[in-house]
Amino acid sequence: MMRTSFLIFFVLSLILSSSYAAVQDFCVADYTAPQGPAGYSCKNPANVTVDDFVYSALGVPGNTSNMIKTGITTAFSSQFPGLNGLGVALARADLAVGGVVPMHTHHGASEIVLIIEGTITAGFISSDNKVYLKTLKKGDIMVFPQGLLHFQVNVGDTPALEFVSFSSDSPGLQILHTALFQNNLPTDLITRSTFLDTAEIKRLKALLGGTN
Amino acid sequence: MMRTSFLIFFVLSLILSSSYAAVQDFCVADYTAPQGPAGYSCKNPANVTVDDFVYSALGVPGNTSNMIKTGITTAFSSQFPGLNGLGVALARADLAVGGVVPMHTHHGASEIVLIIEGTITAGFISSDNKVYLKTLKKGDIMVFPQGLLHFQVNVGDTPALEFVSFSSDSPGLQILHTALFQNNLPTDLITRSTFLDTAEIKRLKALLGGTN
Amino acid sequence: MMRTSFLIFFVLSLILSSSYAAVQDFCVADYTAPQGPAGYSCKNPANVTVDDFVYSALGVPGNTSNMIKTGITTAFSSQFPGLNGLGVALARADLAVGGVVPMHTHHGASEIVLIIEGTITAGFISSDNKVYLKTLKKGDIMVFPQGLLHFQVNVGDTPALEFVSFSSDSPGLQILHTALFQNNLPTDLITRSTFLDTAEIKRLKALLGGTN
Amino acid sequence: MMRTSFLIFFVLSLILSSSYAAVQDFCVADYTAPQGPAGYSCKNPANVTVDDFVYSALGVPGNTSNMIKTGITTAFSSQFPGLNGLGVALARADLAVGGVVPMHTHHGASEIVLIIEGTITAGFISSDNKVYLKTLKKGDIMVFPQGLLHFQVNVGDTPALEFVSFSSDSPGLQILHTALFQNNLPTDLITRSTFLDTAEIKRLKALLGGTN
Amino acid sequence: MMRTSFLIFFVLSLILSSSYAAVQDFCVADYTAPQGPAGYSCKNPANVTVDDFVYSALGVPGNTSNMIKTGITTAFSSQFPGLNGLGVALARADLAVGGVVPMHTHHGASEIVLIIEGTITAGFISSDNKVYLKTLKKGDIMVFPQGLLHFQVNVGDTPALEFVSFSSDSPGLQILHTALFQNNLPTDLITRSTFLDTAEIKRLKALLGGTN
Amino acid sequence: MMRTSFLIFFVLSLILSSSYAAVQDFCVADYTAPQGPAGYSCKNPANVTVDDFVYSALGVPGNTSNMIKTGITTAFSSQFPGLNGLGVALARADLAVGGVVPMHTHHGASEIVLIIEGTITAGFISSDNKVYLKTLKKGDIMVFPQGLLHFQVNVGDTPALEFVSFSSDSPGLQILHTALFQNNLPTDLITRSTFLDTAEIKRLKALLGGTN
Repeated sequence: MMRTSFLIFFVLSLILSSSYAAVQDFCVADYTAPQGPAGYSCKNPANVTVDDFVYSALGVPGNTSNMIKTGITTAFSSQFPGLNGLGVALARADLAVGGVVPMHTHHGASEIVLIIEGTITAGFISSDNKVYLKTLKKGDIMVFPQGLLHFQVNVGDTPALEFVSFSSDSPGLQILHTALFQNNLPTDLITRSTFLDTAEIKRLKALLGGTN
Repeated sequence: MMRTSFLIFFVLSLILSSSYAAVQDFCVADYTAPQGPAGYSCKNPANVTVDDFVYSALGVPGNTSNMIKTGITTAFSSQFPGLNGLGVALARADLAVGGVVPMHTHHGASEIVLIIEGTITAGFISSDNKVYLKTLKKGDIMVFPQGLLHFQVNVGDTPALEFVSFSSDSPGLQILHTALFQNNLPTDLITRSTFLDTAEIKRLKALLGGTN
Repeated sequence: MMRTSFLIFFVLSLILSSSYAAVQDFCVADYTAPQGPAGYSCKNPANVTVDDFVYSALGVPGNTSNMIKTGITTAFSSQFPGLNGLGVALARADLAVGGVVPMHTHHGASEIVLIIEGTITAGFISSDNKVYLKTLKKGDIMVFPQGLLHFQVNVGDTPALEFVSFSSDSPGLQILHTALFQNNLPTDLITRSTFLDTAEIKRLKALLGGTN
Repeated sequence: MMRTSFLIFFVLSLILSSSYAAVQDFCVADYTAPQGPAGYSCKNPANVTVDDFVYSALGVPGNTSNMIKTGITTAFSSQFPGLNGLGVALARADLAVGGVVPMHTHHGASEIVLIIEGTITAGFISSDNKVYLKTLKKGDIMVFPQGLLHFQVNVGDTPALEFVSFSSDSPGLQILHTALFQNNLPTDLITRSTFLDTAEIKRLKALLGGTN
Repeated sequence: MMRTSFLIFFVLSLILSSSYAAVQDFCVADYTAPQGPAGYSCKNPANVTVDDFVYSALGVPGNTSNMIKTGITTAFSSQFPGLNGLGVALARADLAVGGVVPMHTHHGASEIVLIIEGTITAGFISSDNKVYLKTLKKGDIMVFPQGLLHFQVNVGDTPALEFVSFSSDSPGLQILHTALFQNNLPTDLITRSTFLDTAEIKRLKALLGGTN
Repeated sequence: MMRTSFLIFFVLSLILSSSYAAVQDFCVADYTAPQGPAGYSCKNPANVTVDDFVYSALGVPGNTSNMIKTGITTAFSSQFPGLNGLGVALARADLAVGGVVPMHTHHGASEIVLIIEGTITAGFISSDNKVYLKTLKKGDIMVFPQGLLHFQVNVGDTPALEFVSFSSDSPGLQILHTALFQNNLPTDLITRSTFLDTAEIKRLKALLGGTN
């Protein structure tokens, strides 16, 4: 008798679960289908495996042999399909001695930085031009409210490592010096809209590969 | 008989309407009560009048006798109480000949600029440092996606007027040159996080009233 | 040496930017791909140009030779692809002398009206049947909270022009008299659900092209 | 030994739970504190009981001795404190023979109607003036998309009962005939904005208690 | 003359309505096109009929011949296409004498239960392990805040019927005993993560068809 | 002359900035004022300092001398005022050898776990009772979609450390065994709603301090 009711229940469960398994729990990114304002299309749930929810690239130190002496590795929904639509993302920054995460913003995302190793001076600037600046040590966290300019500098004499959490799975990233100087925005318009002088703009355009 | 049923209906309506009039339709800002993450507290609906929903300051040209030759007047929920919680705001910019709305961002809001008079070159920069630049004439509109750096310059030989619509009633506003140079952010940290040279930073700090 | 680190950085930037350029900044509407509840699918970012973000139809006065003596031109995401997903839209209304923007609602969007020329009486009605009515002059703005019935009438003796901002890129628009009388909703059901009398309903159905 | 670790765990649990019990689970309405755009302030969790989450008024048939021959009873966050901030609400409508839920909108909420007893013709009208009309019997449900005009009529020869679910805990309710005729909106403005004729407006104002 | 202006208006209306009819009002699910994080793709509005907004399966009592003596029938967006994107859903539960809606959660949705027939003991548990328990009779409603464990038991001596409303059109459903015991989650991991003993886990795995 | 225009600009900036500094950038929690559904009231911005945005408690290893051999330290908006309203939070878990983060859910938040030290088996269960299980090593991350049951076990022979990021600043936390057994939920109701047997429930109630 127990077997009969179990069988009925089991079949019932199968029917129930198959009918609403699709959209409810997750929407793993299918990078080959159309995107919309809310994110990527969903991979067929039948083809989803645990590996869609696991990502290992943040385990590898970033290359710091560059102008900013910092390697940045992101786990956003554009690289890590399981994050799609879930509203959270992660990144890793390795800062060599003297390394910097340059002045930047994330449109549409707040951020928490967590110091794993080293000593880092971090800051953000509010709409009324006030500076919130702090030197952080191992285990400290600091939050940068959505969309405000912020930066970090390794001020210690050892390499530093930090992990960064975002309130979006697709937080955007606009780095100030590349946004201004690594493209063809005319020097005259930069001068007029930022009050930087022409010589300085030309120097940075040359350094960063900008034209005009 | 009609009178009786009308009376019953009228009383019923009074009871119904009084019971849910409060939060549903609007939440006019009460600037004297606590604020929360979603906006200002609501004024008692009994004290709300049509004047809470009307604002006249955008009818007055802004003063352009300043460094940017532009007057900006905002109608955000912090000035215009009826907007509170409604997710839309407006501003007006008067640009004298040569005037500029400097490079800036709005965190958490997209923006549409509408040209009423004059000829304006407007642009925004995307995350991958690409420039979207256009010279706009009367009646043109241009949209700046949320959180990206953008600016406008009056490139004509007459004054220009534009109105700006936002996808938030509290869109924030971070102006690049005042954010960087009109405060006490140490010159050394600016240099390291933006690659601007020290002399240029000191020149702009002097111009804008920054220290350190 | 600087050249080497610059090259490394430049390549690094290319890799980084290409990897997350897609969804983050904007989602220009691709009208040929499937839509979802959050809006249109995104055009391939590689094919996006500045012209996707600029729209000129609001620069042309609307035709007022019609029953409402008013021309309405919209810049919603269904016409202006750059707006898709950005949560803001614009429209223009030209009201001839005696023109009217008829009683209507926008489901899911609040609205700010801005008077550019003329004298306009505007009003909205709240859930408890209270009327908020004001005569607006050039430069005044008025906000209509989400979903409430509202209207505008040109009460001056010159043409009027207004621009309207919405808290959605797809604000919807339900005009009362066409919703009730420009279709096949049976007269009997209209009578019972609105208390309008049969003769009046039939007159308006005849005027507006309704049947039944 | 088990006792010791249990005690430690128990104390730890107390500390943990007391530290984040407040905002996370629910926000029962405190009708005496300020409201904000997202809803009522939260009652102190220490004073919350199960009775804040239970509501019995929907168990009582509404009075149908009125002009619409229908009694409507709501369980919105303004009456049922446990709903505050939870994004769902309920209402009950008792329709006598010939009763009607008049043409109305809910700003900011979609609605599902569920027929418990009787035969009801329900309909909604879309932005392009198309009518979606259906006669529903016991057990049928119909959804009315957010903000669109809709109504129900008891077309059977027995009383009808329906329950209505909303996608908001504060769904608003604008009833067309009381919005237009049960206030002081001048007849001339109603005529111009709705195309209804003056005599009909005056008749309905007289019926419903409107002035002007 | 009226005819001319009417014709112009009629044509204008057609043009206007056709240009924005698509996304604004609703997004009926097209189960054959890609899904995204916000829901299913939209069916072409030209093919939408009133039947997409009506659903009759909740009118049929669920089969209670199973282990839980309860039949559950859902009207979520995965079965009822008109709900897609509208943020509300419904379900029906028929509980035989002794029937139970087992301990479960809905991720991302709050729920209101409405008792139509019978006597039901319902409860939920908050984050600080507090129990909110109530015996409900016909007409009572109870709300279960988002994501918390809850259950219902028919404690009367007659069958019970309830309808359940959700604050999402895709509310998810995780039933505790099937989540733990109706799959291949290793017994050892269940023991360690729940403190249930091995024999009890094995008994329930056998009962429910779990392995490992 | 430059001085004059600078002064004018400086005064203008002061006026502008003071007028909208309040709500836009952040809403640091004021734990003494009323809360609402969207979070805590905001501290007066004039009293906000950088220390409101920095938190150091995650730098201290948690105490693992307890039943779960794991110490959990949270940085939610209820402890870390700068997070309020920002939609992201962090926690730290120290797992001794054999330690476990027990089976639990977060209502209204997805989660990313990041392994800093050790070897951890982590898993979650979907609505259709499927298990997603993986053994993670240093540097791996895994995402648990919103509201689903999940757990972690230190399966290595050294202590483990992980940091956890959430898509909410107030993610909630319902631990299965304390929710079921550390309160006065009657044993009979637990049996009926979970299918656990009475003896096992009584054993766990005794272990965890539950009654009834």
